[in-house]
Amino acid sequence: MIATDDAVVALAEEPAWDFLRTQRLGRLAYHLLGEVHVVPVNFAVRGRQIVFRTAPGSKLLGVVMHDDVAFEVDEVDQTRATSVVVRGSARLLADREADAARELPIQSWVATDKDEVVAIEVTQISGRTFRLVR
Amino acid sequence: MIATDDAVVALAEEPAWDFLRTQRLGRLAYHLLGEVHVVPVNFAVRGRQIVFRTAPGSKLLGVVMHDDVAFEVDEVDQTRATSVVVRGSARLLADREADAARELPIQSWVATDKDEVVAIEVTQISGRTFRLVR
Repeated sequence: MIATDDAVVALAEEPAWDFLRTQRLGRLAYHLLGEVHVVPVNFAVRGRQIVFRTAPGSKLLGVVMHDDVAFEVDEVDQTRATSVVVRGSARLLADREADAARELPIQSWVATDKDEVVAIEVTQISGRTFRLVR
Repeated sequence: MIATDDAVVALAEEPAWDFLRTQRLGRLAYHLLGEVHVVPVNFAVRGRQIVFRTAPGSKLLGVVMHDDVAFEVDEVDQTRATSVVVRGSARLLADREADAARELPIQSWVATDKDEVVAIEVTQISGRTFRLVR
């Protein structure tokens, strides 16, 4: 599949958020002890935040030790590819803020407890849509 | 969608590579000036390498300045989610090695020239498959 140059459209901030709200799965990139890591994450949008649940482990350790993160969401079908990338600062939610976030409709691939809730405060968002020609 | 605990299967190294060979789109996480970034990338597998094409820009600058990268590929359908994550070292290919890599069937979303070829020498690979129940 190839798109011609004029078939690439940059998404403005609001359409980029609109796209994020239609999606459930993104990929979180984070630092861990000087290395870069990336994992799939089921998420929800709340205001200008990306919210996800996690269990204690390297992902949680990574964002607690270094809050600089990036997050990518994409969707590809026969005629179009869309990708939105955000950068921001991740923080572990606590108390009432965490309880409220636990009510968000975040679906998990695994039934194990994921009691911790992390929010990414988004500082940059950019997106592009590509019209694909096969 | 939820999977029960016993519905999560770790992929061994060979099945993880087999999965990568069926896929075209991954997400590259890289360092850039102390920040972590993540972008969608169309790729091909060659031996134990992930190969992608790029144009001069922040992605290329990032991997040239700091070769530590991570790369994630996933596929979700109605009954199953699979994700493979690799870590490794990225390097810009040159000369005959680059020419050979340009023959790989890497499809791009954009028709603009992407003359540079980057290979990730994979040092770690891990994958999981989740059986989903709705």
